[in-house]
Amino acid sequence: MAASPYEQLEQEFRRLHAFRGALSLLRWDAAVMMPRGSADVRGEQLAALETEHHALLTTPKVARLLERAEAASSHLDDWPLANLREMRRQRDHAIATPPSLIARLAKATARAEVFWVEARKANDFKVFAPHLAEVVHLVRDKAALLGQARGLAPYDALVDGFTPGISTADIDTIFKALSRKLPGLISEAIEVQADRAPIPLVGKFSVPRQRSLALDVLKALGFPFDRGRLDESEHPFTEGVPGDIRVTTRFDASDPFSGLLGAVHETGHAMYDLGLPQKWRDQPVGRDRGLALEESQSLLFEMILCRSRSFVKYLKPLMEKYLQVTGPEWSEENLYRHLIRVKRSLIRMDADELTYPVHIMLRYDLEKKILEGSLPVADLPEAWNEHLEQRLGIRPLSDVEGCLQDIHWAVGHFGYFPSYVLGAVIAGQLNEALRAERPSLDVEIAAGQFGGVMEWLRDNVHGVGARLPVLELIKEATGKPLTASAYLRYLETKYLEAP
Amino acid sequence: MAASPYEQLEQEFRRLHAFRGALSLLRWDAAVMMPRGSADVRGEQLAALETEHHALLTTPKVARLLERAEAASSHLDDWPLANLREMRRQRDHAIATPPSLIARLAKATARAEVFWVEARKANDFKVFAPHLAEVVHLVRDKAALLGQARGLAPYDALVDGFTPGISTADIDTIFKALSRKLPGLISEAIEVQADRAPIPLVGKFSVPRQRSLALDVLKALGFPFDRGRLDESEHPFTEGVPGDIRVTTRFDASDPFSGLLGAVHETGHAMYDLGLPQKWRDQPVGRDRGLALEESQSLLFEMILCRSRSFVKYLKPLMEKYLQVTGPEWSEENLYRHLIRVKRSLIRMDADELTYPVHIMLRYDLEKKILEGSLPVADLPEAWNEHLEQRLGIRPLSDVEGCLQDIHWAVGHFGYFPSYVLGAVIAGQLNEALRAERPSLDVEIAAGQFGGVMEWLRDNVHGVGARLPVLELIKEATGKPLTASAYLRYLETKYLEAP
Repeated sequence: MAASPYEQLEQEFRRLHAFRGALSLLRWDAAVMMPRGSADVRGEQLAALETEHHALLTTPKVARLLERAEAASSHLDDWPLANLREMRRQRDHAIATPPSLIARLAKATARAEVFWVEARKANDFKVFAPHLAEVVHLVRDKAALLGQARGLAPYDALVDGFTPGISTADIDTIFKALSRKLPGLISEAIEVQADRAPIPLVGKFSVPRQRSLALDVLKALGFPFDRGRLDESEHPFTEGVPGDIRVTTRFDASDPFSGLLGAVHETGHAMYDLGLPQKWRDQPVGRDRGLALEESQSLLFEMILCRSRSFVKYLKPLMEKYLQVTGPEWSEENLYRHLIRVKRSLIRMDADELTYPVHIMLRYDLEKKILEGSLPVADLPEAWNEHLEQRLGIRPLSDVEGCLQDIHWAVGHFGYFPSYVLGAVIAGQLNEALRAERPSLDVEIAAGQFGGVMEWLRDNVHGVGARLPVLELIKEATGKPLTASAYLRYLETKYLEAP
Repeated sequence: MAASPYEQLEQEFRRLHAFRGALSLLRWDAAVMMPRGSADVRGEQLAALETEHHALLTTPKVARLLERAEAASSHLDDWPLANLREMRRQRDHAIATPPSLIARLAKATARAEVFWVEARKANDFKVFAPHLAEVVHLVRDKAALLGQARGLAPYDALVDGFTPGISTADIDTIFKALSRKLPGLISEAIEVQADRAPIPLVGKFSVPRQRSLALDVLKALGFPFDRGRLDESEHPFTEGVPGDIRVTTRFDASDPFSGLLGAVHETGHAMYDLGLPQKWRDQPVGRDRGLALEESQSLLFEMILCRSRSFVKYLKPLMEKYLQVTGPEWSEENLYRHLIRVKRSLIRMDADELTYPVHIMLRYDLEKKILEGSLPVADLPEAWNEHLEQRLGIRPLSDVEGCLQDIHWAVGHFGYFPSYVLGAVIAGQLNEALRAERPSLDVEIAAGQFGGVMEWLRDNVHGVGARLPVLELIKEATGKPLTASAYLRYLETKYLEAP
C-alpha cells in the first residue's frame, strides 16, 4: 500500500530531524573541541546545512503533502494530529521569512556581534548603536512577516518562535504580578539576610575534583553517560538530540558552586530532552515545548531543588570527599547561606534567584519599545540605566555594566528574554504540584534520590512532548492555569524564612 | 553579468564540500567523542547527510551545467579545466550506482560487519561466508556499473574509486617487480639482523607523557594546532578538511613507539591535506589525488623519514626527557634496531615495512579472483593459508589469524588494498627525488627540522591537488615514471646495511 500523505510527511521530517542533529553536533564541537582557527570552515558547514534544512522544509512537495494530510486529518489520532499541527507550524515559520531576509539578518548580526565586542572594549554604546539599529530594522521586517503568517502581532510572533503558545498578554499578566511583589520581597530578604552573611569559602578548588563531584551529582540526577557527555566550555549549554545529548559547564577554581550548578542547570534541559516521547523522537511532536518550558526544567533543578537545605545535606559530604575541605564554613547552614544570598547587582549573569526576574522584565519592556519604534536605539543606555534604578535602586556607571552586557540583541534574539522568567514561574508551579504529590521529596533529595522527581516530570511534562500547547500542558500537569502565585509563594517561603 | 555554467558548478561543489566537511566531523566524533550508546542516532545523521550529498551531486541541474560548461571549456585555464574534469568524475561515479544498490550494499555490509565480528569470536570463517558472499555479489554489480560509466574493466573501476588514474596493469607491473625481489630481500634482512637483536624496552610508559612527546614531534613536523587536533581512538585515522584537520592515534603503555608512529603516519596525511591548493580548497581539483598518494605521504613520514638513524638522533633526547628513561636499551643503535626489525608474521597490522607488501599482494590476488568468480568465497580460508605459506613461509593455524583478520571486505572495500603498497612505492620514489635535491636531509631530520621536506612536498605534491593524473604528478615531481626501482633500492640499502 502506498504511503499516505501524512506518512510521507513523517518520512520528510525524519530526515529534517537528522539534519538538526548534525547541526547540533557541529555547534557543540565548535564550542567544545574545535581548533580556534577553524571557525570560518565551520561557518561554511553550518550555513550549507542550515540552507539545505530550510530548503527541504519549504519545498512545494511538503506544502502539498501538508494540505492533503490536513484534508484527511479527521482519521488521525491525537498524536499524529498534534504532529501534523507542529509540522505545519515549522513549515509556516520557515516559509514566512524569505531566504534573502535570512541572509541579510545573518550578515547584519555577524557584523553587530563584532561591534558589540568592540563597543564593550571601548565601553561605548555608540560604537554598537548603528549596527544594532540595522539588526532591529531587519528583525522588525521578520516579525511583521512572521506575524502575518501566523496571525499574530509582530512581537508575539517573535515570542512564538521561541515559546509557541505564549502571548504578550500572558507575559504581561505574569510580569505584572511579579512586579507588584518582587521589589518588596527583595528588600525584605536583604534585611532578613543582613545578619546571616555567610563565611567566605576561600581557596583553590581543583577543577578535576570539581568535575568528579559534578559527575557524581549528574549520575544521581539520572544523566545517562552512555548516551551523553559532560564537557567544559566558555558558557554552559546543552546540545544534541535524545540519544546523544551533551551538556557543558565551566568550572571556576575559586568557586565550588558555579561549575556544579551550571552542570545541574544543563542537566535539567538534558533530562527534559531525554524524557521526550521515544516513539516520536524524530518527529516535530516529539520535540520540547519551547524555550520557557525548557528553562522551567533547568531552573527547577538549579534553583528550586538544588539551592535548598535538603540538597545541601546531600552535597556537603560530597564536597568534603572530593574537594577535601573542612571547617565551619563548610557547615550545612553556611553552604545554604551561600546558595540563597540575595544581592542587588548590575549584571544579569551575576544576579541571584530573587533579583534575576527584575533584569529580565527590564529587557522585555525595552525590547518591545525598541521594536515598536517608541524607543530610539540611540536612547537605549539612558533608558536602561533609568529603568534599572527605578526597579532595583542601583544605576550602571558605564555601558558595559548597562545595556552592553548581553549579546542577545546583537545576534537578533528579540522575544527571547521573557522565557527566562516564564521558565522560573512555571518551575515554581510545577514544584508546588510535585510536592503535593510527593510529601517526602525533601527526604529523597537529601539522600541524593531523584528517581521520583524524574518519574513525575516524565509523566507530566517530558513525555507530553509537543502534543499540547504549553499552557494546556501546565494546566494538566499542575491542575491549575499558569499564574505567578505558586512561584511567589515559593520565593516568600524561601527568602523570608524565620531565622 | 550572470554566472557562467562553470561558475555555477563551482557554487554547487562548494556546497558539496561543506557537506563533506560536516560528514567528516560526524565520523570523527563517532570514533573519538561519541557516547557508546549513540551509534544508532549517528547512523541516521550520516545516512541523511550522505543521501542528500548524493542527491545534490546527481541532480539534472548539475548534469546540464556540466554539459554546458564542457561545451565551453576551451576558454578555461589549466586549473578550472582540471576542476571541471574532476567534477565530471565525481558526478559520473555518483550517478553510476543507483541509490537502491547503494542502500542494499549499506545493509549487506552492516550485516556482514556484525557477522565478521561473530566469526572472529567463533574463529570460524563459515559464520561469515554467506554474508561476505552477499557483499561480493553486490560489489560485483557496482563494479560492472561503475566500469560501464567510466569505460574501465570492473575491478579497475573499483580501484579508480580509491585511486583515480591507476589501472590493474600499472599495479601488476609494480607488484611483479616487488614479488621478484622481496622474498630474497626478506630472507637476507632476517639473516643480517640475526645477531642484531635489540635489547627489549621493558616498562610502563605513561600515556600522558607519550602524548606530550608526540605533540612535540608533531609540532616539529609543522602540524598546525590552531587548525587541527590530536586525539586518541581505537585505530589511528585522519578526518576533517583543510582548515580543520584531526588526527588520532592510540598509545600503548607498554610500547613507546606505536602511538608516536601512528600519530606521525596520520600527520603525513594531514600535512598533505593542509598543503592542498588553498585557492581551490572547496573544489574537486583542490582535493587529494587519491588513496595511493595519500598513503605515500603517511608512509614517507612513518616509514622512510622516521624509521631512520637520523630521526633516532632527534628522538632519543625527547624520549629521555618525556619518558624519563635511561640505560643501554635507549641507545640510538638499539632504538634504531627496534624500528627496523624484520619478522615474518601472520597479521598484516603487525607486519614490518619489509614484509607488509607481501600481505597486501596476497589480498590483491585473492580479491580479484573472488570478484571475477574464479575463487568461491567458501574456498577463501584454504587459498589464503596456501598463498601466505608460499609467499612468506608461514601458515595460519586458524581463520582469525588468516582471512578473518581484516574488516575491509566485510565493509565492501574491494580495490582498496593495493593502494597501501602503491603508496609505499610512490613514497620510495619521492624520497629518492627529495634526497637528490636536499643532500642535507639527514642532518635536518636529526635536528628535528622538517620545514625543508614540507616545502618540497608542498611544491611538488601537495600543492598540485588533483590538477594532474596521479602518474603524471609523480613524473613531474620525480622526473621519472613510477616504477618500483627507487623503493627497492631504498629497502636494500636500509635492510642489507653492513654491520
